[in-house]
Amino acid sequence: MIVSLVGAGPGAADLITLRGARILQQADVVAYDRLACDELLDLVPIHAECIGVGKRPGESVTQEQINHLIVDRARRGKRVVRLKGGDPFVLGRGGEEVLALVEAGIPFEVVPGLSSSTAVPAAAGIPVTHRGVSSAFTVVTGHDQTSSIDSTIDWNALARVGGTIVVLMGVRTRASIAKALIEGGLPACTPVAAISDGTTPRQRVVRCVLDNLGAADVESPAVLVIGGVADLGHEATLTALRLSRVPA
Amino acid sequence: MIVSLVGAGPGAADLITLRGARILQQADVVAYDRLACDELLDLVPIHAECIGVGKRPGESVTQEQINHLIVDRARRGKRVVRLKGGDPFVLGRGGEEVLALVEAGIPFEVVPGLSSSTAVPAAAGIPVTHRGVSSAFTVVTGHDQTSSIDSTIDWNALARVGGTIVVLMGVRTRASIAKALIEGGLPACTPVAAISDGTTPRQRVVRCVLDNLGAADVESPAVLVIGGVADLGHEATLTALRLSRVPA
Repeated sequence: MIVSLVGAGPGAADLITLRGARILQQADVVAYDRLACDELLDLVPIHAECIGVGKRPGESVTQEQINHLIVDRARRGKRVVRLKGGDPFVLGRGGEEVLALVEAGIPFEVVPGLSSSTAVPAAAGIPVTHRGVSSAFTVVTGHDQTSSIDSTIDWNALARVGGTIVVLMGVRTRASIAKALIEGGLPACTPVAAISDGTTPRQRVVRCVLDNLGAADVESPAVLVIGGVADLGHEATLTALRLSRVPA
Repeated sequence: MIVSLVGAGPGAADLITLRGARILQQADVVAYDRLACDELLDLVPIHAECIGVGKRPGESVTQEQINHLIVDRARRGKRVVRLKGGDPFVLGRGGEEVLALVEAGIPFEVVPGLSSSTAVPAAAGIPVTHRGVSSAFTVVTGHDQTSSIDSTIDWNALARVGGTIVVLMGVRTRASIAKALIEGGLPACTPVAAISDGTTPRQRVVRCVLDNLGAADVESPAVLVIGGVADLGHEATLTALRLSRVPA
């Protein structure tokens, strides 16, 4: 039976795609992330098996166990949905699950979801690109699980690219990220917006400059937007915030 | 009356969000892009006014005219939806439309959509990030409307960041982009996947290396994925391609 990797989107239940919702309605088994919105499970048929496989730091469900679970249920003829927060292929390890399915000879499909990297800034009224301000953006991970920033990225070079920088999972390492980018040449006064619990009723936007990012009061999970666009839409943000509180 | 900027997603009609679909079902006026899927207009009430404001090169509808149209209809008490291909805030000039609404004192909301930059690679089985291959990605525009590449971007620095590079609207300038990235230090043998008409039944994937990108047979509109991830999922791609042909 086919396995569907479905992106749940950034938080609000009604930001899943029509295709993703339809597939959930036909599921026999749903293996869901901690970042996938709980309300989406209301779409799942009553007979279906719903399994939380959230990977909080220290939790015991490993990627290997998730892969094993999905393959096992698919082999038993179940219609399996792997529901992942955001987009399965944007910093979501979806590629690893796909490879496990390919190795096991199980057919699959990928249903993309809205990534927090662009949807969360948008919901706060901030475009990641804006004519005359930024025509590109880079999405990086801050690697919350460790105390150091991603060493596979040349942060010096990133500081010079000229586009917006969007950091996911970077709350813990935000001071180090700011330091690396300033050392690379980004002005200390570069605007930053930190959006916590984006697209949900708990959404909160903290604005600062790069030099103050380490000291700013930012709660995880948050999306950090670094660059001129972070200064746009103060008024827009208020409107968007108000609207995001309207229930789905 | 409120204006909704709604992201239509990357191409397939059922890749719009539940929220976006619901808003279309309540529209009095829909101003839609050429990149927004025509089938989505089937969701719109029969009484609604649907206005194509596609901005092909040489077409006469300017951004100012679009802004004027939206403001005018909203002032007449109409429920206006501005339906934009992909995500309104990812290289979509949505920020400019928002500013026009703010200036006119008209309330608005932004409903994010799936951006082609991640959804199109995903539909072709290619994750823009993958453990051990790439933990970041940069989305840039190739500026199809001119013959030169975006001069606000430091392509030399971009070549050294270490993440995947995703180019939108870069078919015409692909040779120049490849040259700039190779000069910046990216190996000439860096894998590239060019995905034309992604997520639609016409989806087509061309694979090459950076050095050959200029000569590769790529049709517009296409998303170019540059980096190690472009070499992933050959088998996955076949499966995904087959699945993407299943009608919504």
